[in-house]
Amino acid sequence: MDVAKLVALNAVYARVIDTEQFEEWPKLFHDPCLYKLTTADNVAKGLEGGLIYADTRGMLEDRISSLRKVNIYERQRYRHIVGLPVVLAEAGDTADVETPFLIVRIMRDGTMDILATGCYRDKVKADASGALKFQERIVVCDGQRFDTLVAIPF
Amino acid sequence: MDVAKLVALNAVYARVIDTEQFEEWPKLFHDPCLYKLTTADNVAKGLEGGLIYADTRGMLEDRISSLRKVNIYERQRYRHIVGLPVVLAEAGDTADVETPFLIVRIMRDGTMDILATGCYRDKVKADASGALKFQERIVVCDGQRFDTLVAIPF
Amino acid sequence: MDVAKLVALNAVYARVIDTEQFEEWPKLFHDPCLYKLTTADNVAKGLEGGLIYADTRGMLEDRISSLRKVNIYERQRYRHIVGLPVVLAEAGDTADVETPFLIVRIMRDGTMDILATGCYRDKVKADASGALKFQERIVVCDGQRFDTLVAIPF
Repeated sequence: MDVAKLVALNAVYARVIDTEQFEEWPKLFHDPCLYKLTTADNVAKGLEGGLIYADTRGMLEDRISSLRKVNIYERQRYRHIVGLPVVLAEAGDTADVETPFLIVRIMRDGTMDILATGCYRDKVKADASGALKFQERIVVCDGQRFDTLVAIPF
Repeated sequence: MDVAKLVALNAVYARVIDTEQFEEWPKLFHDPCLYKLTTADNVAKGLEGGLIYADTRGMLEDRISSLRKVNIYERQRYRHIVGLPVVLAEAGDTADVETPFLIVRIMRDGTMDILATGCYRDKVKADASGALKFQERIVVCDGQRFDTLVAIPF
Repeated sequence: MDVAKLVALNAVYARVIDTEQFEEWPKLFHDPCLYKLTTADNVAKGLEGGLIYADTRGMLEDRISSLRKVNIYERQRYRHIVGLPVVLAEAGDTADVETPFLIVRIMRDGTMDILATGCYRDKVKADASGALKFQERIVVCDGQRFDTLVAIPF
């Protein structure tokens, strides 16, 4: 798999979230798909459930609609720093990839803190036009504390 | 535009600052150029001004001269972690690129904090020798708090 | 040197540590090799010694054995975010490379802090199979405070 394309997919993913173009986010997934937010602890314990789970693009779009309604008064910003991808396996136009991430949250008053670190565990596949999209993106967070409302996509 | 060259330009940019080879920093720009440090808030409000503004290589060099004089007693270090670039548009040998960044400040006593996160909004163009340089680098910080003296280039 | 291969080497390096596959870590080095953990201050003062020093793969393996024994009750996690590499020099199949890094430590209760930032100063060389490995990896940390026990490889 072309690393430049993988880098581009990850870069665009981070950018649509950090620039709050949330409606572009579901378009980076195939349909059906799998998007799950979980923790390293849950994965280690074999717990299959996630804090967030979606398996169609429609579910991802619903999530964004809710976010738009809920978040009218919230003014945090987020900044994803996505690390270097490791391609674990390839078969045809599909690849299993792991990519580390760090998300910083910037509060209205300028305070910054590390919101989360972790690893994206992805199945990536080209669509009919040759563009890479996610079949699966499992977001495995290193920590196990979350705000009561994890608002944005990770 | 060759992603490997873009990555190299960004990597060298971070390195000349973090290794305090500040005099190398202006050489990464065309002349004339645009270097501006601003905030996402200012950009959202349509405010054109920046906290720092330079439109020639000479102005960038002046900035470094000042920094060298002022900073004799300061002993912070800085570490840029530059994320993955997104190429937004290309025309000939010129490209519009956005690249996220995170800057950590390391104090004399070893304390570390996140100084800034944000996004570089660049116009990048090859010079006569084929080396990529910045026509524009607009540094859009996510937060809106700055030290009274933002000393180093971001 | 192929940047994609350099990126892959760095990505795998971070992954074997963060996924606690420590036994894979020495395999990323040639034998003999040089692995040293030091600080920017020590380097600036011309101090050659390091906080950690190993010059054979066996010494790296010993380090991992100790870590496995000591760390039975520790439950921190670590997350490396590795930045973009700068190739400083190339000769044949060997290259001098510098790559910035950031390591976040995630405590059992979910607290996250920046453990270290710094720069990897590497000599990288292909082995007989064409795979890149480290002849040298000198880990130069920006700060000069360390826990009494620096347990994991940086």
